[in-house]
Amino acid sequence: MKTLRTVQDLRAALAPDRRAGLTIGLVPTMGALHEGHLSLIERAREQCDRVVVSLFVNPAQFNERSDLERYPRQEAHDARLAAEAGADLLFAPSVEEVYPPGFATSVEVLGVSERLEGAARGAEHFRGVCTVVTKLLCMTLPDAAYFGQKDAQQVVVIRRLVRDLNLPVRVEACPTVREPDGLAMSSRNALLEEREREQALALYWALRSIEDYAARGERRAARLLEAGHQRLTARGVHPEYLELVEPDTLERLEWLDRPALLAVAANVGATRLIDNLILAPVSESPEHLVPAPTRNETAPEFASYPTPHPNASATPIKETTCSA
Amino acid sequence: MKTLRTVQDLRAALAPDRRAGLTIGLVPTMGALHEGHLSLIERAREQCDRVVVSLFVNPAQFNERSDLERYPRQEAHDARLAAEAGADLLFAPSVEEVYPPGFATSVEVLGVSERLEGAARGAEHFRGVCTVVTKLLCMTLPDAAYFGQKDAQQVVVIRRLVRDLNLPVRVEACPTVREPDGLAMSSRNALLEEREREQALALYWALRSIEDYAARGERRAARLLEAGHQRLTARGVHPEYLELVEPDTLERLEWLDRPALLAVAANVGATRLIDNLILAPVSESPEHLVPAPTRNETAPEFASYPTPHPNASATPIKETTCSA
Repeated sequence: MKTLRTVQDLRAALAPDRRAGLTIGLVPTMGALHEGHLSLIERAREQCDRVVVSLFVNPAQFNERSDLERYPRQEAHDARLAAEAGADLLFAPSVEEVYPPGFATSVEVLGVSERLEGAARGAEHFRGVCTVVTKLLCMTLPDAAYFGQKDAQQVVVIRRLVRDLNLPVRVEACPTVREPDGLAMSSRNALLEEREREQALALYWALRSIEDYAARGERRAARLLEAGHQRLTARGVHPEYLELVEPDTLERLEWLDRPALLAVAANVGATRLIDNLILAPVSESPEHLVPAPTRNETAPEFASYPTPHPNASATPIKETTCSA
Repeated sequence: MKTLRTVQDLRAALAPDRRAGLTIGLVPTMGALHEGHLSLIERAREQCDRVVVSLFVNPAQFNERSDLERYPRQEAHDARLAAEAGADLLFAPSVEEVYPPGFATSVEVLGVSERLEGAARGAEHFRGVCTVVTKLLCMTLPDAAYFGQKDAQQVVVIRRLVRDLNLPVRVEACPTVREPDGLAMSSRNALLEEREREQALALYWALRSIEDYAARGERRAARLLEAGHQRLTARGVHPEYLELVEPDTLERLEWLDRPALLAVAANVGATRLIDNLILAPVSESPEHLVPAPTRNETAPEFASYPTPHPNASATPIKETTCSA
């Protein structure tokens, strides 16, 4: 696997493949690769003749300078992992290569960018994401680009961006990969201290407790989310948001009466984490429904949580998603 | 020449040419084709194997609804002209094809977009231009795209956009084409009544009078522009702007001590017109210099204007520019 630093070198490397009619897959990353990234690379490897992994910690999408500075960087290690997972090229440009002097352009998606992460981190976060993704797609001109469902809103925003700008690429969303105990894999997990690592699991527990509550027939978003908040605060985690939204528009749902995205963000210590699940409403058949609760009824207790994840094992686990 | 209405048809039509390694030129237009557009098509024809002309009156770049409604539309005539000039494909999509329901993305270039036309027409004008040009380039993926130097700022903004987003295209700027009397060709000229057509020439006279004044050694922007304003107001034309700016940054110049863009915009009746020239400072050799004027000296009279344009003839005239 070659490592390339400039757009010119990347294009030169891909030109013969493109002329030969080979398909190109792009896996855009900010490095600090984990099993989640590797699953994207593997998926690209299955589907494309050439696999490009980009590694660029994009300053434009960090709303907090400290977050940018703390973001883990380990290029040599990443290069090994990417090669093992099947990458042909690692594109690791400098900040100056991506944003040369005089750079003045930005790409913005309204609507879906303004909710959840956009509301919490400000408009510049997704403006930074959209601008750099547009650039990476125009640099590489891949047939397909691979993103993790763990960043569920990012997938929605990028699908909108690609459709709206007529970018000639297929967007593939791949399932979230989790640690055996359920914690969603994230480059930021490396920043967690031992006690925080344990606390971080509360995000997953909260999502799963809501999923269970819904599986028992609760459809009122307010009740579902209240149960999740209880799980989080019991572990001392105060979420930035915990929301049940329509998966394409990201508009808040009052009722779980269709498939919905359940998304959470919280700081654990100094580390900001996000996670999500897709919830489906249970069928209307009476045996699945809990009796209509009275106004004063409290959310049920989930004393037994954390339940082991159904696929819990020593190897990372992947979820089924409404992927590409 | 085929006329295509959808992005899918456009891509399908170009795919075999692209696979065969043929080069593709794109001439984006809003229709109402005139000699200026035809010169772009001819240039594309000289340089590329396939020439695509797009015809799309882009609502997003009109800041005035009345301007959008009045904009001339004559597709059948345009199709004939484009074919005669050498186009292979006319891409004439509907508004719904370009901006389908749910469209939410915009592309913005700061800095160079904010001056001249941007200041006069508001940020949405160039946001509309940048968004649609990005889309047209991503739809067509041409090797080169052709723009008229008459829209000098648009060329600067699009060059910035293409560099910043790594759009894989060469931007070619072609000289302004003028009527024999000097009026810059524009689709909007068709909207001028006879008396207005005469008045419109004041824009060109003003630019040329400034050019002459500069050729005689005047380097102070304030004096040069004052002379231009006199020419305009003498004809009852009150410019939105008349500015001498650096050709790449579009920042105002106090002194004509390097090549400069001289740009003007004015309403003539209900029709908004723009024009520009590139000015070069005269050499420092004494015979070219007018004596340093005193503070109270007024701008010289140009009683003899309009001088016939050096190339004046029955056929349209093209300027030399600092083109691609």
